[in-house]
Amino acid sequence: MSVEVHPLRGLPEVTPGDDLAALIVAAMSRAGIRPANADVVVVTQKIVSKAEGRVVPEQPDGKAAWVARETRRVVARREELIIAETRHGFVCANAGVDASNVPQGALSLLPIDPDGTAEGLRAALERATGVRLGVVVTDTFGRPWRRGLVNVAIGCAGLPSLVDLRGAADANGRPLEVTVVALADEIAAASGLVMGKADGIPVAIVRGLSLEGKPTPAAALVRPPEEDLFRTSADAPP
Amino acid sequence: MSVEVHPLRGLPEVTPGDDLAALIVAAMSRAGIRPANADVVVVTQKIVSKAEGRVVPEQPDGKAAWVARETRRVVARREELIIAETRHGFVCANAGVDASNVPQGALSLLPIDPDGTAEGLRAALERATGVRLGVVVTDTFGRPWRRGLVNVAIGCAGLPSLVDLRGAADANGRPLEVTVVALADEIAAASGLVMGKADGIPVAIVRGLSLEGKPTPAAALVRPPEEDLFRTSADAPP
Repeated sequence: MSVEVHPLRGLPEVTPGDDLAALIVAAMSRAGIRPANADVVVVTQKIVSKAEGRVVPEQPDGKAAWVARETRRVVARREELIIAETRHGFVCANAGVDASNVPQGALSLLPIDPDGTAEGLRAALERATGVRLGVVVTDTFGRPWRRGLVNVAIGCAGLPSLVDLRGAADANGRPLEVTVVALADEIAAASGLVMGKADGIPVAIVRGLSLEGKPTPAAALVRPPEEDLFRTSADAPP
Repeated sequence: MSVEVHPLRGLPEVTPGDDLAALIVAAMSRAGIRPANADVVVVTQKIVSKAEGRVVPEQPDGKAAWVARETRRVVARREELIIAETRHGFVCANAGVDASNVPQGALSLLPIDPDGTAEGLRAALERATGVRLGVVVTDTFGRPWRRGLVNVAIGCAGLPSLVDLRGAADANGRPLEVTVVALADEIAAASGLVMGKADGIPVAIVRGLSLEGKPTPAAALVRPPEEDLFRTSADAPP
């Protein structure tokens, strides 16, 4: 089955307290995108943070004080760049504090509970549309050994964030070695193809997936410390 | 513009010396997928390695000797798991040596020059189809701080593997902080949505992208050592 990734245009500027589900349903209607069973609604962190009041003023030191507040653990640091673990367990630049697509003088912080946001959105969107949906909240992360940024999932509801193929066989009937696929991250990255960082398109609809399997949150994507071989940097000690 | 990701079914089992471009064109024709300008043909490492004779017999120690041969530098190690830098500069488990979707007793190694493969495929597919195409060769990599695997680009031709938005403005006219997007990795991850590890679908067509900009290879995705904050693991020294 083919998968389609549709940008959702025409959302208004989001402000604190806005009902994102209602805004998304209205924009889908205006765009002629009729919700279908198993659609995944992908929403950037930025509009979630705006709706949830997680846009804050820059301080005299710029973002440093906010980064420190948002950091649970510094993983690596080099000059201005801080790679930090957030309270959610995500490891990313500046603990997710970011100045793009917010007004001059403001910074956005990651949502407090992006899985909770995803679940709330999913329930509200399902009530409004009458179809079964998934929701993924994305942010744009770097990777240690690869240049460039990709969208990843920081919130997930209505689908398994990880698909465990252990026990499944490959096309030769041999047990698969590659066993656990980060479905929510693949969906997030696919949505990045239409969200275009400069275009201000904060929502995409991914259609054609199977959402079968027990739904799991994006928290399940966080590698636990005992599995983490790169908990601290030997090259740039914190 | 929406993006479509189509699985390409019906490819025969690939053997050394096969002409992948011819097999893909024939399978597209049988599947009723008519090549269009700016289509990106995404091909898994596995069939490239099969076509290029990079499938080898397991040794008495399983894969260890092959992993050692394919490794340029051990980045981290824990029990059986080796995180290694390959000669291409990619950092991944077991230096890309893998037993899935190859016959019992065999292992696949990464292609010697996946960017060269991508460029050769692009040229051959363009000659055969008369349209302008991109090609991405993918493999499935883990990530240090996130569970589960995602498809990434190990070869790229006909499109910029990285899209540099520096100098572009966000929707508020403010310079973008998030500046370089790993387009080829987003395409690879999107293709993972239809390739389904257990289904033996080794090719996908991604349609609807802009391939504008100077084409760059997947080699451009490799973070150079001087930028690498996680060159060695402090937690699992090699």
